[in-house]
Amino acid sequence: MSQPYDDQNVFAKILRGEMPCYKLYEDDETFAFMDIMPRADGHCLVIPKKPSRNILDVDPDSLAAVMRTVQKLSRAVVKAFSADGITVQQFNERAGGQVVFHLHVHVLPRHDGVSLRPHTGEMADKASLESNAEKIRAALA
Amino acid sequence: MSQPYDDQNVFAKILRGEMPCYKLYEDDETFAFMDIMPRADGHCLVIPKKPSRNILDVDPDSLAAVMRTVQKLSRAVVKAFSADGITVQQFNERAGGQVVFHLHVHVLPRHDGVSLRPHTGEMADKASLESNAEKIRAALA
Repeated sequence: MSQPYDDQNVFAKILRGEMPCYKLYEDDETFAFMDIMPRADGHCLVIPKKPSRNILDVDPDSLAAVMRTVQKLSRAVVKAFSADGITVQQFNERAGGQVVFHLHVHVLPRHDGVSLRPHTGEMADKASLESNAEKIRAALA
Repeated sequence: MSQPYDDQNVFAKILRGEMPCYKLYEDDETFAFMDIMPRADGHCLVIPKKPSRNILDVDPDSLAAVMRTVQKLSRAVVKAFSADGITVQQFNERAGGQVVFHLHVHVLPRHDGVSLRPHTGEMADKASLESNAEKIRAALA
């Protein structure tokens, strides 16, 4: 079922600096930034720098690096938002919930009794995205 | 926020052979088996053998090994169920959706137009669990 990688996807453009993002973290293998349609305050994304469409084609070392960064971000958002928990999601192909075809892992800070917001397709306001990004950057520092 | 590991959780008991499971795969670091309350046919779980509560405390190498097995299982369930996609979920602490406090990753085969079933808390019938397990084992072989 594995499909070819299309380097015109928006995350590839973010990696190449052709599109802006609220950057949180970067190392040799991974990159993390805010989800601009957050389902919870502090909802962020981790991607590999190496092109991969999803779990079906990703290089295992690249996936391992992504998960190291997911752990860093999870700890940071717990600290930044006094979160009670974290939901990690990773979607593959349209049937699996994938919309952007560069592998990405969602890190969602959770609080007791608070449901995830529905995925409306509406972008959050820039001030709240930047403010939440700054909290996460401070927690990572 | 990281909490201590309690070795009386059901997945620890499965690893010690104190509780049965529909086993799919095992290597030095990881173990995979059927979710007995499947939200989709072929819904399975991957866990590390090394005790860890969740993403907040897991050893990064252990997490990397888990994700290698998640990739193996993802490819296998696509083959076994002619899945159109895969949803990967990983829950941390109660607020994050965690019920069993040994780190685990859900691998959910998905088909176009088919929603995940709600989490009812009802166990699937043994014949369908065993039949689906057998399909996955065959795809892994």
